[in-house]
Amino acid sequence: MFNKIVIFGVGLIGGSFALALKKAGVVEQVVGVGRTAAPLQRARELGIIDLAASSVEEALRDADLVLIAAPVAQTGKILAAIAPYLQSSTLVTDAGSTKGDVVAAARAVLGDKIAQFIPGHPIAGREANGPDAAIVDLYQQKKVVLTALPENRPQDVERIAAAWAACGAVIHRLTPQEHDAVFASVSHLPHLLAYALVDDMASKPHAEILFQYAASGFRDFTRIAGSSPEMWRDISLANRAALLHELDGYLIQLIRMRKMVVEGDGDGLNQIYSNAQRARQNWSEAIELAERQRKEGGD
Amino acid sequence: MFNKIVIFGVGLIGGSFALALKKAGVVEQVVGVGRTAAPLQRARELGIIDLAASSVEEALRDADLVLIAAPVAQTGKILAAIAPYLQSSTLVTDAGSTKGDVVAAARAVLGDKIAQFIPGHPIAGREANGPDAAIVDLYQQKKVVLTALPENRPQDVERIAAAWAACGAVIHRLTPQEHDAVFASVSHLPHLLAYALVDDMASKPHAEILFQYAASGFRDFTRIAGSSPEMWRDISLANRAALLHELDGYLIQLIRMRKMVVEGDGDGLNQIYSNAQRARQNWSEAIELAERQRKEGGD
Repeated sequence: MFNKIVIFGVGLIGGSFALALKKAGVVEQVVGVGRTAAPLQRARELGIIDLAASSVEEALRDADLVLIAAPVAQTGKILAAIAPYLQSSTLVTDAGSTKGDVVAAARAVLGDKIAQFIPGHPIAGREANGPDAAIVDLYQQKKVVLTALPENRPQDVERIAAAWAACGAVIHRLTPQEHDAVFASVSHLPHLLAYALVDDMASKPHAEILFQYAASGFRDFTRIAGSSPEMWRDISLANRAALLHELDGYLIQLIRMRKMVVEGDGDGLNQIYSNAQRARQNWSEAIELAERQRKEGGD
Repeated sequence: MFNKIVIFGVGLIGGSFALALKKAGVVEQVVGVGRTAAPLQRARELGIIDLAASSVEEALRDADLVLIAAPVAQTGKILAAIAPYLQSSTLVTDAGSTKGDVVAAARAVLGDKIAQFIPGHPIAGREANGPDAAIVDLYQQKKVVLTALPENRPQDVERIAAAWAACGAVIHRLTPQEHDAVFASVSHLPHLLAYALVDDMASKPHAEILFQYAASGFRDFTRIAGSSPEMWRDISLANRAALLHELDGYLIQLIRMRKMVVEGDGDGLNQIYSNAQRARQNWSEAIELAERQRKEGGD
């Protein structure tokens, strides 16, 4: 299906993509590009890539597909480096957690080659990073959101979808704006809130006592505050408008609930708590049902 | 050590206390009191209690120790029911998640018998409830916070501490005010925040799409929003002052971070995110170290 695939960033995300495509037998050659030599060397040892490119020009020559799997703040620079060597038969996609900013950067540097860029976002991850973290089944049954542009040719979008499907992923489609609004709500805001709480606690004079009494509820609530600060700083700013929209909605909600606590409005609080508990229960049951159905379907 | 212990609320918390004391061989007779007959009957079948009391008067007669393990909003009523029959040789403790309100209620109804009431809060739980959820090792290596009153006699406080220690618990001591401030911060506020987020999401017109893309970060962040709405409504109001203090601090933190997002202040966000990540990492490592040491000590 693909003669030559080029991966910018041969870590968890890019490396797992390469391993899965190789296992599926749909790629002849995988070429790696990175800022430093060591991860590329390691990716070769692990069989993730066949070749570490010595230049972007060499890497791009006769490539079928380029995946940009670098931190989201670097996507613009990488696209700019690619642009001069981008042949008309090459498709480019990315794996960034935000899409509006990536599309804006792509439009700025790719010009009329923008049709060749099909943005994407695989919803998968692990605690570990780097080539050694890459695993062949990272994308099995995971969602990949493609946010196709009006300029993209349908057959090109389907080619990217087929690559992810070959990795075992389930393809979803949103516009870049829809994507950013959805993930601001279900992911970016919760990260900001968890970081905010832990920093607030840690900055108090009696922080040591507080942490001593933190238990399993706190552990789960703040697990995402253990994520990479640089990555989430970049995401917070890259998706600024949507994140602010969600944050403002949440602040209004908190101020409404603050009033209920002040006034001793137990019915009001109970309504919010009950609604939340029911919604989360339904969500949790729907996920478990879908997982059971997938397992049964796979037998 | 105890001839007769009386348990108000023979569910997870009270039932596990009884089972652990029986196993430790430090109690002769456990008497259960409850609002309905079925759980008492079930607690007898399970060997949690030896007898279901037919009246509070009968239950209290020659009791050494009373544990109130009912929902926190009922504590005042139960103390009022106990007061007329409380002999001078009987100690009373509770297992409520808030302490200031319980102490105020106890002072109001116990009068000069207040010295016999030693408030407590075991930091332990399971997803399940009722007598069938009670397990003998619920309190093993778990914290129990005693919030002794100035009126309590030291030897009485030690007697309560010894009972929890016989259940395998690690005893901590705070004033009721310290307790309420600490748990407002590490537990009550996070619950309110998690309920707030899920209700906010569930109330949006495109809630169905949002929940579809919620993944493991969201799952952990909102796990505590699956808790009992009634229980957390009661706690939110019972610990109102401390909760408001924490909520206001958190709102100030969020508004500060909102400004950083608006102004594109990546350094400011990075500092908060990094501080939070480091603090959580340290906390998490300290817990793991303590667990390893406990396991080694237990060999």
